[in-house]
Amino acid sequence: MSSMVREFQEMIEGLISEQNFARKPVELYEPIAYTMGQGGKRLRPVLTLLACNLFGGDVKQAAYPALAVEVFHNFTLVHDDIMDKAPLRRGMDTVFKKWNADIAILSGDTMFAMAYQYALKTEPAFVPDILRVFSKAAIEVCEGQQMDMNFETQQEVEIADYLEMIRLKTAVLLGAALEIGAIVGKASESDIVSIYEFGVNLGIAFQLKDDLLDVFGNQKEFGKMSGGDIAANKKTYLYLKALELANPQQYAELSRYYSTNDMRDEDKIAAVKNIFDSLQIEDQVSAIMQRYYDAAMEALDKIEAPNQHKEPLLSFADKLFHRTY
Amino acid sequence: MSSMVREFQEMIEGLISEQNFARKPVELYEPIAYTMGQGGKRLRPVLTLLACNLFGGDVKQAAYPALAVEVFHNFTLVHDDIMDKAPLRRGMDTVFKKWNADIAILSGDTMFAMAYQYALKTEPAFVPDILRVFSKAAIEVCEGQQMDMNFETQQEVEIADYLEMIRLKTAVLLGAALEIGAIVGKASESDIVSIYEFGVNLGIAFQLKDDLLDVFGNQKEFGKMSGGDIAANKKTYLYLKALELANPQQYAELSRYYSTNDMRDEDKIAAVKNIFDSLQIEDQVSAIMQRYYDAAMEALDKIEAPNQHKEPLLSFADKLFHRTY
Repeated sequence: MSSMVREFQEMIEGLISEQNFARKPVELYEPIAYTMGQGGKRLRPVLTLLACNLFGGDVKQAAYPALAVEVFHNFTLVHDDIMDKAPLRRGMDTVFKKWNADIAILSGDTMFAMAYQYALKTEPAFVPDILRVFSKAAIEVCEGQQMDMNFETQQEVEIADYLEMIRLKTAVLLGAALEIGAIVGKASESDIVSIYEFGVNLGIAFQLKDDLLDVFGNQKEFGKMSGGDIAANKKTYLYLKALELANPQQYAELSRYYSTNDMRDEDKIAAVKNIFDSLQIEDQVSAIMQRYYDAAMEALDKIEAPNQHKEPLLSFADKLFHRTY
Repeated sequence: MSSMVREFQEMIEGLISEQNFARKPVELYEPIAYTMGQGGKRLRPVLTLLACNLFGGDVKQAAYPALAVEVFHNFTLVHDDIMDKAPLRRGMDTVFKKWNADIAILSGDTMFAMAYQYALKTEPAFVPDILRVFSKAAIEVCEGQQMDMNFETQQEVEIADYLEMIRLKTAVLLGAALEIGAIVGKASESDIVSIYEFGVNLGIAFQLKDDLLDVFGNQKEFGKMSGGDIAANKKTYLYLKALELANPQQYAELSRYYSTNDMRDEDKIAAVKNIFDSLQIEDQVSAIMQRYYDAAMEALDKIEAPNQHKEPLLSFADKLFHRTY
């Protein structure tokens, strides 16, 4: 990882540790301190700072807006975990599990409002644009989450709809994180469009990589059970593409595997992986990932900024794209 | 009701009906359209417009920020109804009941983000101040809701804590609604402090009136079962004051009534009302309400604005204070 990325990660961690989450009522703020203290890659706020730096902006002015993006992202995880009834997140109990759904709802709501408070802590001239970008992304993330929930019970899901879902649920927030940094960096309108495009395309590639790693990733390093999406009947790109390419027998088998909860997970995962392998799904996903990655690079290319300033973003994107867990 | 209040109510209803809530995914937006279409008094946005008008501001510039306050308020109701497992709101099924908790969480989150989008639709110069006031109130409303939930299981509740809870849960949003209108009206800093004080004190009086009407109100006009708070063992000001004034026997009886769910509601309500009557609780509540009402009037007095401009706010406050349902 480049030293700049590490520097920005540390800046965000430092900012988080400076925040006073030990407020009252404790029932509300303890889960917030717990959530924000869990670490993680701080991917999104780092993108904000990298974008600000790309355009030669004052990174200090972007620090709180970057924190806003991180707090917002964590808020969505707290609420998603209620809806998904997820017991674990980053290897620790979810707020929903450790406390209860009511606490998770209300702590999440508070984090959302806190995110807006942080977004305001910059030059007032930047505020309307930052908030416009932030609010639009927030709404789209909710839309994406709703589509994702719909897919659980929906019989047929189109590949295009799946891609739109991950665009909304995951990618637009990466785009918004970058755009907010670019606003503080006083980027031109066309550069702001390009950095957003860079982020959204990178975000879609990032999520496809996540889907891929869930099945084919290094289990130990990835930190999750390999094949968890298959066990949960999650209709990812891998599954939808496999359905598209399957012969009638494979189609019937896949459909059956994805509509049962009665099989042992290991058996189901092995059987589905087998079909994925025979259809060369790993190559298929890699190909479409490459398309989104290329589109991201094209957008980055268009930006009028010195190449050495683009370097940290490039290597960051490269790391995301080539990670093996 | 003054013609200005009616005019502003219609303005808000008109603005709501202009919004396009028929977006996709429908599962997300139908509950939003349902919630926003339920009417209600539109108390908070009307306060925003009245405050803007008080300071001679351009009411059109305050319209969307006013809508933001109303959408935020409705968002809090949607989430509160999940936590309270409330089946009915304004005589209709709650979102939680009509759909489910997941939909209520996510539609609510979306409404919160939409509220911020609306808050941005005004002159950019007003945006940072409006958003600061709005976000602070949003956080405080969450804190108040958490305190309210804590009180349910807390053995002893201090009267001061109860008053702090209703200040946070109910009153600060009235203060914020007015303050936002005052910002658009370009009020002076000291007038902004005063209008906020007016709103918070009025809000506390308003909530105490609600508590009072729940027990002593005209059941038919109030539209709720009289004594609902007693049946639900809700530790309102009436109950806490009664505990303070009770003799040992009354204290024991009250404590017993408020820790059982086994009595028939009618019997419990009648018995508790009986104790309230013998302790002259209605007078006690009226007295403290009057103190908050007077404090609100004092704050309004301090504001440097023509008296005829204060008239609609005065009569509005008077209506709230003297309503019998």
